[in-house]
Amino acid sequence: MNGPIRHIVLIGAGNMATVLGKVLRQAGLQISQVFNRTLSSAEILAKDLASPFTDQLDQLDQDADLYLLCVSDHAIEALLPQLHFLDGKLIAHTSGATPGSVFQGHFSRYGVFYPLQSLSKSQPIKLSEVPICVDANEETDLVKLEQLAQEFSQHVYRVDDHQRSLLHVAAVFVNNFSNHLYDLMDQWLGEEEIPFDLLRPLILGGAQKVQGLSPREAQTGPAVRADLNTIRRHLDILQEKRPELVELYKTLTESINPDLQQHKTT
Amino acid sequence: MNGPIRHIVLIGAGNMATVLGKVLRQAGLQISQVFNRTLSSAEILAKDLASPFTDQLDQLDQDADLYLLCVSDHAIEALLPQLHFLDGKLIAHTSGATPGSVFQGHFSRYGVFYPLQSLSKSQPIKLSEVPICVDANEETDLVKLEQLAQEFSQHVYRVDDHQRSLLHVAAVFVNNFSNHLYDLMDQWLGEEEIPFDLLRPLILGGAQKVQGLSPREAQTGPAVRADLNTIRRHLDILQEKRPELVELYKTLTESINPDLQQHKTT
Repeated sequence: MNGPIRHIVLIGAGNMATVLGKVLRQAGLQISQVFNRTLSSAEILAKDLASPFTDQLDQLDQDADLYLLCVSDHAIEALLPQLHFLDGKLIAHTSGATPGSVFQGHFSRYGVFYPLQSLSKSQPIKLSEVPICVDANEETDLVKLEQLAQEFSQHVYRVDDHQRSLLHVAAVFVNNFSNHLYDLMDQWLGEEEIPFDLLRPLILGGAQKVQGLSPREAQTGPAVRADLNTIRRHLDILQEKRPELVELYKTLTESINPDLQQHKTT
Repeated sequence: MNGPIRHIVLIGAGNMATVLGKVLRQAGLQISQVFNRTLSSAEILAKDLASPFTDQLDQLDQDADLYLLCVSDHAIEALLPQLHFLDGKLIAHTSGATPGSVFQGHFSRYGVFYPLQSLSKSQPIKLSEVPICVDANEETDLVKLEQLAQEFSQHVYRVDDHQRSLLHVAAVFVNNFSNHLYDLMDQWLGEEEIPFDLLRPLILGGAQKVQGLSPREAQTGPAVRADLNTIRRHLDILQEKRPELVELYKTLTESINPDLQQHKTT
């Protein structure tokens, strides 16, 4: 109970389990078992990790140092009552949206091990670049989870439930919402037969810029420089071509530069 | 008049002139003169380019193959009437927001040479990765501008006034508006003492993802998977912490997934 984490049981065999399982094994840890409701999925991942696997909860390895819940937010609560026999063992989930307190009343030792990235099996990412947010109800376990994350990432942060819930919202803004802006433009330019490739370097350049600068320092464009001529021309174009985007353009422009609210932009 | 462009006069000495001047010189072209209203600015850039410089329009080199207007959108129209003595020479501006037709009535040979990127002197970018949008009123000049761009970029596109005006709007969405979403979160997390560094890899990862995938394929998050529990939780958090962002969250969520309009998300 006091040594570092060496043996890990993965519960789940989806994106999260796959990405974490591979990087943990590469870091020299032993995935002592893969559990999944669908045995064939457990088997596929277990093969990659040279691990035993099972689809029966009552056959779970009871000697692991960590039980890592890599299941959907929805499945976490459903699973907990069935895992009572693990009480006393360290259990952690990998969800950005679920508080660690979900374990209260079920387990005496619990934590969170949350990689802040949009993970997918098909798009391999370097987990060493991904911030890992750790939390636990006991300081000794928090240190263990922290050390485990440091085995493969240089970006390990202690993040409590409150902070993680804010980060989860922020991730939607910077990732999902930005991507949607790209999508809106891809759909539009596609109809105008302008290749989206023209915008790809601009998108990448914008993300690279804020790796060193603050977004405030990196802000460019007609809104921040209060260039009303350009803003009016853009609104005219949108009104003609994409009227459903006029309000969004105005909202974001006035959010960038609140002084523009006084001017009627149309 | 029929050979390729070898000698270029830069009109302006700001970001655009600096970035373009350097890359053109590196590609073996001769910057035969730098003009700027402020002589000291002309001198600084001219030194880097081993070029003569002037602040007098009547001393402009009249034997160049191309006059490249690297001035603000606003200054283009003001300058044109003073450049009539160059009529017959090829002149091009570098603006995304200005139609090529601005030259009509002033010049018989004109075009556009527009690098689609957010340029700045302090943040050096690899212009070889930047799409260069070219246009001209004569096919022979269009070919010349195209060949000039190909000297340093593999991404050269023929883009007419109409297409460029749409691209300019699209660039605001994918670059300025995305960056503003980053900024909103930076301000918020800063107040909560959560380092913005936690989001930087996510931002970069999101931009990298759409280099290969379409944004539609890359879309993740609660909106696209109609995860109402998470959306409601996010709205509760925003209502408490950042009420001014509630409407923006709803607008973008419902834009991602129009089916969610039926459900009352709050």
